Amino acid sequence: MFYQKEIRLKARSRGFHIITHELESQLPELHKIKTGMANFFIQHTSASLTINENVSPDVRSDMESHFNHMVPENAPYYDHTLEGSDDMPAHIKSSLFGPSLSIPITNGALNLGTWQGIYLCEHRNHGGSRKVVVTLIGE
Amino acid sequence: MFYQKEIRLKARSRGFHIITHELESQLPELHKIKTGMANFFIQHTSASLTINENVSPDVRSDMESHFNHMVPENAPYYDHTLEGSDDMPAHIKSSLFGPSLSIPITNGALNLGTWQGIYLCEHRNHGGSRKVVVTLIGE
Amino acid sequence: MFYQKEIRLKARSRGFHIITHELESQLPELHKIKTGMANFFIQHTSASLTINENVSPDVRSDMESHFNHMVPENAPYYDHTLEGSDDMPAHIKSSLFGPSLSIPITNGALNLGTWQGIYLCEHRNHGGSRKVVVTLIGE
Repeated sequence: MFYQKEIRLKARSRGFHIITHELESQLPELHKIKTGMANFFIQHTSASLTINENVSPDVRSDMESHFNHMVPENAPYYDHTLEGSDDMPAHIKSSLFGPSLSIPITNGALNLGTWQGIYLCEHRNHGGSRKVVVTLIGE
Repeated sequence: MFYQKEIRLKARSRGFHIITHELESQLPELHKIKTGMANFFIQHTSASLTINENVSPDVRSDMESHFNHMVPENAPYYDHTLEGSDDMPAHIKSSLFGPSLSIPITNGALNLGTWQGIYLCEHRNHGGSRKVVVTLIGE
Repeated sequence: MFYQKEIRLKARSRGFHIITHELESQLPELHKIKTGMANFFIQHTSASLTINENVSPDVRSDMESHFNHMVPENAPYYDHTLEGSDDMPAHIKSSLFGPSLSIPITNGALNLGTWQGIYLCEHRNHGGSRKVVVTLIGE
């Protein structure tokens, strides 16, 4: 079975957001797969996807603090500055996290660990709605 | 062919460890696949998987040194500190490396480059045994 | 359908390079797949693959500037220094970006976003030609 769908995520503020439920609720086809893989691919270069802790909101806000520190705005060595001070850091962060997640499917569901949630990493101040291509492969 | 298995890695100290053989030795099913993909997915948010140099132990210890420098403990901007000074850095590192690896299978074996080995990145001081879901897809 | 091919990229200078066309032009098999996934796996530990902005050359040169700053040569804590000052930073960068990309295939083509291109990240001063194993899965 090969299944593919484009999902439009609702717009979110700059930072890290749990979107596990928003994705799963739009993928009833997951239930038809006993063993397989799900790939989530975000079609942008200033937002990304990652997996991290799904309980404490502090983890999400500390992630934002740390990456703003590690990838600062207005670094003296940036030349790509026309689209605003949040633009080049957003490109760098998007490559640090990466555009896609490959998650095993087991018995009709994403086989995430107990504490794992899917994060949208929104690196722009006003990123708008983001598009994710989901591909399910399995039997 | 879709094959899936949960592998429990033995507990390891904080740092970077080559686990290629520990994984391969538990996957006799690899030999049945001529062309395909293997996905290794770690079900944790404070340990991760990566691929790097499989010879010099210096590479592993320098990785630990560098990431402790780049993602320090006790950063003044961390709020998530209840579970110890190694906790929030472990979450950040786990997203930098990512939870999963997708490796081609060719003629019954993982098609790694000559110098590539699979690393377990153990970011906690006492992480204990870690769980990896392996999915093999191929023919 | 499972298809696999080894592609040799031409040698490039240290830095970030768009290789989308070099890859696609060697993959006529893409056209045979309506729905599926393409995996690109680089068999090296001092070069990597990522996806980022496909227009402005400034993004590529700013990426190089930033990662040279974030992962410096000659850090006092490196022990792995025999192969030159660009060696250990190259290993660290290769794990930050990762060795592989999983990109959806839709209607016979890589389903990249409008602004997305595939980058070769060459982290060595003289890396030479790099080898990428491409696996296409789909129907």
